[in-house]
Amino acid sequence: MSTHPVTSYIPSSTWAIIEDKFTPYGKETLSQLIKFLEDEVFPSLSLAEAQLPEDPERRWKTIIPIVAELKAKAKKLGLWNLFLSKAHYPQFGTPLTNLEYAVMAEIMGRGGHVASEAVNCSAPDTGNMEVLAKYGSPEQQQRWLVPLLNGEIRSAFAMTERFVASSDATNIKTSIRKEGNEIIINGHKWWISGAGDPRAKLHLVMGKSDPNNPEKHQQQSIVIVPADTPGVKIIRPMKVFGYDDAPEGHCEVIYENVRVPISNLIWDWGKGFEIIQGRLGPGRIHHCMRSIGVAQRALDLMIERVTDPGRKTFGKYLHQHGTVIADIAVSRAEIESARLLVLSAALQIDKFQAKGALKEIGIAKFVVPSMALRVVDRAIQSFGAEGVSQDTFLARAMAGLRTLRIADGPDAVHIQQVGQRELRRADELRQRSQKTKAKETALWRKNGLKL
Amino acid sequence: MSTHPVTSYIPSSTWAIIEDKFTPYGKETLSQLIKFLEDEVFPSLSLAEAQLPEDPERRWKTIIPIVAELKAKAKKLGLWNLFLSKAHYPQFGTPLTNLEYAVMAEIMGRGGHVASEAVNCSAPDTGNMEVLAKYGSPEQQQRWLVPLLNGEIRSAFAMTERFVASSDATNIKTSIRKEGNEIIINGHKWWISGAGDPRAKLHLVMGKSDPNNPEKHQQQSIVIVPADTPGVKIIRPMKVFGYDDAPEGHCEVIYENVRVPISNLIWDWGKGFEIIQGRLGPGRIHHCMRSIGVAQRALDLMIERVTDPGRKTFGKYLHQHGTVIADIAVSRAEIESARLLVLSAALQIDKFQAKGALKEIGIAKFVVPSMALRVVDRAIQSFGAEGVSQDTFLARAMAGLRTLRIADGPDAVHIQQVGQRELRRADELRQRSQKTKAKETALWRKNGLKL
Amino acid sequence: MSTHPVTSYIPSSTWAIIEDKFTPYGKETLSQLIKFLEDEVFPSLSLAEAQLPEDPERRWKTIIPIVAELKAKAKKLGLWNLFLSKAHYPQFGTPLTNLEYAVMAEIMGRGGHVASEAVNCSAPDTGNMEVLAKYGSPEQQQRWLVPLLNGEIRSAFAMTERFVASSDATNIKTSIRKEGNEIIINGHKWWISGAGDPRAKLHLVMGKSDPNNPEKHQQQSIVIVPADTPGVKIIRPMKVFGYDDAPEGHCEVIYENVRVPISNLIWDWGKGFEIIQGRLGPGRIHHCMRSIGVAQRALDLMIERVTDPGRKTFGKYLHQHGTVIADIAVSRAEIESARLLVLSAALQIDKFQAKGALKEIGIAKFVVPSMALRVVDRAIQSFGAEGVSQDTFLARAMAGLRTLRIADGPDAVHIQQVGQRELRRADELRQRSQKTKAKETALWRKNGLKL
Amino acid sequence: MSTHPVTSYIPSSTWAIIEDKFTPYGKETLSQLIKFLEDEVFPSLSLAEAQLPEDPERRWKTIIPIVAELKAKAKKLGLWNLFLSKAHYPQFGTPLTNLEYAVMAEIMGRGGHVASEAVNCSAPDTGNMEVLAKYGSPEQQQRWLVPLLNGEIRSAFAMTERFVASSDATNIKTSIRKEGNEIIINGHKWWISGAGDPRAKLHLVMGKSDPNNPEKHQQQSIVIVPADTPGVKIIRPMKVFGYDDAPEGHCEVIYENVRVPISNLIWDWGKGFEIIQGRLGPGRIHHCMRSIGVAQRALDLMIERVTDPGRKTFGKYLHQHGTVIADIAVSRAEIESARLLVLSAALQIDKFQAKGALKEIGIAKFVVPSMALRVVDRAIQSFGAEGVSQDTFLARAMAGLRTLRIADGPDAVHIQQVGQRELRRADELRQRSQKTKAKETALWRKNGLKL
Repeated sequence: MSTHPVTSYIPSSTWAIIEDKFTPYGKETLSQLIKFLEDEVFPSLSLAEAQLPEDPERRWKTIIPIVAELKAKAKKLGLWNLFLSKAHYPQFGTPLTNLEYAVMAEIMGRGGHVASEAVNCSAPDTGNMEVLAKYGSPEQQQRWLVPLLNGEIRSAFAMTERFVASSDATNIKTSIRKEGNEIIINGHKWWISGAGDPRAKLHLVMGKSDPNNPEKHQQQSIVIVPADTPGVKIIRPMKVFGYDDAPEGHCEVIYENVRVPISNLIWDWGKGFEIIQGRLGPGRIHHCMRSIGVAQRALDLMIERVTDPGRKTFGKYLHQHGTVIADIAVSRAEIESARLLVLSAALQIDKFQAKGALKEIGIAKFVVPSMALRVVDRAIQSFGAEGVSQDTFLARAMAGLRTLRIADGPDAVHIQQVGQRELRRADELRQRSQKTKAKETALWRKNGLKL
Repeated sequence: MSTHPVTSYIPSSTWAIIEDKFTPYGKETLSQLIKFLEDEVFPSLSLAEAQLPEDPERRWKTIIPIVAELKAKAKKLGLWNLFLSKAHYPQFGTPLTNLEYAVMAEIMGRGGHVASEAVNCSAPDTGNMEVLAKYGSPEQQQRWLVPLLNGEIRSAFAMTERFVASSDATNIKTSIRKEGNEIIINGHKWWISGAGDPRAKLHLVMGKSDPNNPEKHQQQSIVIVPADTPGVKIIRPMKVFGYDDAPEGHCEVIYENVRVPISNLIWDWGKGFEIIQGRLGPGRIHHCMRSIGVAQRALDLMIERVTDPGRKTFGKYLHQHGTVIADIAVSRAEIESARLLVLSAALQIDKFQAKGALKEIGIAKFVVPSMALRVVDRAIQSFGAEGVSQDTFLARAMAGLRTLRIADGPDAVHIQQVGQRELRRADELRQRSQKTKAKETALWRKNGLKL
Repeated sequence: MSTHPVTSYIPSSTWAIIEDKFTPYGKETLSQLIKFLEDEVFPSLSLAEAQLPEDPERRWKTIIPIVAELKAKAKKLGLWNLFLSKAHYPQFGTPLTNLEYAVMAEIMGRGGHVASEAVNCSAPDTGNMEVLAKYGSPEQQQRWLVPLLNGEIRSAFAMTERFVASSDATNIKTSIRKEGNEIIINGHKWWISGAGDPRAKLHLVMGKSDPNNPEKHQQQSIVIVPADTPGVKIIRPMKVFGYDDAPEGHCEVIYENVRVPISNLIWDWGKGFEIIQGRLGPGRIHHCMRSIGVAQRALDLMIERVTDPGRKTFGKYLHQHGTVIADIAVSRAEIESARLLVLSAALQIDKFQAKGALKEIGIAKFVVPSMALRVVDRAIQSFGAEGVSQDTFLARAMAGLRTLRIADGPDAVHIQQVGQRELRRADELRQRSQKTKAKETALWRKNGLKL
Repeated sequence: MSTHPVTSYIPSSTWAIIEDKFTPYGKETLSQLIKFLEDEVFPSLSLAEAQLPEDPERRWKTIIPIVAELKAKAKKLGLWNLFLSKAHYPQFGTPLTNLEYAVMAEIMGRGGHVASEAVNCSAPDTGNMEVLAKYGSPEQQQRWLVPLLNGEIRSAFAMTERFVASSDATNIKTSIRKEGNEIIINGHKWWISGAGDPRAKLHLVMGKSDPNNPEKHQQQSIVIVPADTPGVKIIRPMKVFGYDDAPEGHCEVIYENVRVPISNLIWDWGKGFEIIQGRLGPGRIHHCMRSIGVAQRALDLMIERVTDPGRKTFGKYLHQHGTVIADIAVSRAEIESARLLVLSAALQIDKFQAKGALKEIGIAKFVVPSMALRVVDRAIQSFGAEGVSQDTFLARAMAGLRTLRIADGPDAVHIQQVGQRELRRADELRQRSQKTKAKETALWRKNGLKL
């Protein structure tokens, strides 16, 4: 029977299914990560919040000291860039599979942004590093990827546009135009995560370089824009249910006649769509992994709450109310089934890359945030008003999870795409049915009957 | 066929059911209120927000100018204190029924706090005015009720306690002690709505004056505490999903050796529980009414959004997606059925006061906020990320509605109480069944059969 | 305070809303109906079942004696054809409104098919009588409507077709062809309710008389086919979850070169679609009314069950389990809100006929059966295995209600149509928003700000 | 990449997770089973139904010929008693793990009772064989277990009682009394599955042998009762939604002064509860496995239906309606996540026997039937009325699945038990939180702050 420390975070029945797919290195790294999170990160969460000034100006110029400390420690321990699987990124990656990272990401999810950043696994940097590792020129990699991998700078990814139904990415309007040796960018983006951070040195900007191309998925290109290029205007932070998520933020950004050298084009003209396809898959699943961790943390907190000996209502402890017990049982079941879906998708990515795991990723993407919302919602209810306040992590988690039902494609888009993929099984199913039918008819005939 | 302007806010099929229960005065007041809201209040909402300073200090000391203007106008028009039904409060009330006010409150709900305050119908003042009107001494009424009715001051109601499972009100610990001609109050409250407002001049504080009384519902008393009494300490504003709801706020307040004259006791010793019973009924239903309005406003906004000719995804307008249409149809049905429940509860209050309508109020209380949350949630999804941001009213509405599933008793408490009340029908049902059974047996016998 | 006996079946808070819309005749008839149901019908339900032979042949040739008796009694009491409102059918109708009938139908719904048939208000006769009363020629009325109104014969309505997606009625394929003075009908129908009954003397058959008409809703006609016409072949009864609903049944019927005189055409050529539009509206709402009654009966039975002093599990009576209480409270709320929707739709029909109440009818149609299913499902669970057996009415009710989510248009069709109708409000909403926006902009300008 | 034929029944992403846990024998047996099901069983389902007489008497005396044929074939192929894992039953079992059997059971579930019986894996025989294999005396094994293992006889398990809340097994009342060398049994049972079958030669009867034992779980004993013992009275078959499930049936049985020799006692006096604890675990999971198969079959059928080129409504094929696509995607996700839960529970049984997997089994037991009901419900809706009829397997499947939410313990019982088990984590969680808190406090102190 395993005594790996991970079993205090995921059920041992789950660990039993996946343990034999972990390498010794994977198991060891997981142990070290858990120790680091428990010893260093989880106790730092409240301090990180306290170190962010309330002042509306200063909070956007702050590098939170404790986070910087944690980064240094994690890097020294080799708990760094765990998301980048060597199998897919041989030159830069870590010798971990997506499945192994999935379990790590879940536990990191319990530590919010701080935990991810501590081990240099924060969105949108992760996706941007993947893009640069896969499609960047050697010069681009030298200038931008290396410091990102080192955690020295941060980055933004600029796709979503204001005034545009950009859940369908073919709708984007930002113009990317070649002029001599330069590229000129004009566009109005928003929800550009990380753009508020003083350390964000580059934006990957997606726009249309060939808007009249009849092939709608070849109209887009992606360009590296240094954050300090003239014409890059951070308009305002978008808020999420009242939270500004400073210092990273989710900013409204206008690119006005922004000029960059032509060497800043990533890969090639018209490759924008293909790049984001590859980029979003793992990113989506990382969000799901962390969301499982958030849900599990909420359930754990709820269990502590309802067994609190100080909480008695109507003559019973909270945990003696049948409806509370039911909420806990259902949450347990929902988390566990969603976790298994995510692990299954991660394994599929390991086997067939993100492109070969689109159905599994899509399922996880529309199942997990809703599931986690339900669990967090029940936990909030068990806390009463405290649950919607600043005194637990629950309200903020709900805001984040609710946004995740929209970010990287709203639920409806993933549901439709999964449904469409599932419908492709129709021919195979029909053939199988016809075979059975033929045998059935023969059998009736043999028995002197007519079907 | 009615052409009352209300039918642009509620379905004419609903109006058809209730119109004959409106007096001519009620209809006329409703018309005027709608005109005032449309002409003055709804266009002022964004300005009211802009007039609240971002600065963490100053926002708590602000009286929002446009709201003050609106109050003056409303008072002049006689659109004032509409919540206080003359039938139940002959001395102070307005000649409107709860049913009439229900419809008005729904439409006011579309204008948020600003609308309610403009016509002096804001919680917690409304409940406090009811308490003072019903149980206050002439002196208490003169000093506190009159300026409240005039909209000159505001107030807070201090019941919920930190570190206590106060969804069961018998758990509260605040001590209220007589000492000579004074009352001494010690307690630790939070979520005291309105306590942050510079105009809040009094707190009604509930505590235990007789903690050892074997009759658990006679241990409590309620005392008027002027906000500037020494020992009243506003600790901090509680946030709701990142919103602070300044300037009213929901504050953590410590009462430390607060002394008030004995004449500040409301009604009598040990009457605290009975007072809040009466207080919370109508308050709960007012919240429900406004929540219906919030849901209807969200649906209206969603309809505008999905028919926006600029929003096309995957080759279709949003309103051409079957799932979007279904969301709208279901929202329509859910709002309408909840609205009918609320109107039915309001009519029941008119007939039998709040005490005679506890089941109907309880049903509305657990049905409406959840319903409104679902509707707002769908509307958010139709807006994409904009829906969770500061650019629509939706995210903030969701935060408020989510809190309402906890405030004034969490859902579970109301569900259990309604269920218990419903179970009281068991004896009557059993008798009816036995009667039928007796006839059934006789009938079988008559037909020569044995049951 | 009302002491009308109806308040032992519907909450008095509901009665309070509608009482003033009942005529004295309506109230008196309702009282008498309740008395008749309680004294005669409800005690007869089990006997009616016992009088239906198990033998697969004989059960289809039986006229259940107790039902015949009940019909004679009801007719004598004037409790007869209550569904046919004089306001809409002046020549044949009863002086009752749809709202009044709605309440009656709910209580009849507690008595299943027996109750409806006892007072000559059974589908599909009801719809057929409406069609004949509205569109039949004097000869058709004399020959078919009069004996139907007298309860001497029964009838079927043949629309749904096998091998055809007939939830979209424009898809039907049955051919209706004029040849000289005759009409020739060829088609393959199924789910023809009532066609199995030995008393079913006529079928109203819908088919295409003009399949190439570019106006898709003018291709259909409806013809009266005497049940004994050569070529009318009853193939088999369709079963619903194992129930055959003998003796009426839901039959598969082939019409093979069926010839009827041209005078059997109803109204005129090409009017088939218009006729069914009018026919289905009230029929749908009648089903909803009865379903409310089924749900209420299930809840009543559940309350009796869980308070049964013989049922104790895990040391508690069933009604002491929090989840059971919650089930009861939620069921109460769901029934009540759905009932109010149905009553509202009925009132709308009274005001604007079925055509003017399509949205309200559509909402009721997709809300009520699902709601009733949930309530019955909870009641089943409270009964354990007994709940799915022949020993309570619950399993059979579930089968019927499940079918109702399909019959007369599946949920999805009604949801889409209600959604479409709701979307028509978009222009009005947009205008309202623009007006507000204009005032808002002016107000900002006046305050020296820019929106 | 695997090309095992199982991947046409379960997603290859699922197979990827478990493949390495299959032995070569397990994989090979799975292949053979699939071939046998496809070639022989699935084409026989309709014939098996046709071979069961409609006549209410004869259907209970029939041994369905095609099923007998299938049994002979399966036995010859060694596809026999697959449920009985050698690891747990070394003397009698098959060298398959529960995980391996889980996958087999799912696919067998697509073939209903016929498939299970063909390979001698039908309830209640399976559980009875487990009991006899584990607790039976050599004589009992020789006389009853051997012919059961050979598929020569069948059996019943008599636990549930009429007039008793027997979801709590401590409530049962059947008396089991020693008198000399005999045991005398008196009791009133119902829902005794299999008791109607002409081949059912024995009943395992549970009753109270020591009703006054203060230890409530030692009052019960289990006795073997030969079906033809005087006093064993089969009263009637219970129906499930109109289905009688002949010839096995679910019978009401009265045991009236039934006498059996004392050697028919299983294991020992007072061991009844312990025996059923062990018996029900795997039985519950077998039901879940098969239910997954039913759900998957329903989804497959739904996909065939909605892509049927003959089904067009409102100008679109069914599979072009967004809501239909969403139903399919959601069903896919729900089946997959439930399947993973069941596989995880099966693996847990392999590692720790049923007793060590109670939480996982409990979760599967309350999650799977509800999930399968939702999937089947959507499939029914896609078929319209045909879906509730005898023409697809869907309505019957729904009846069976609905019953499964009650059989072997109603959902609520499992939910409460899982919740209780989950609550046992509270202490560990609290310790973890306290450790974190201690470090957090130290960290604040170190940073000169106070938490």
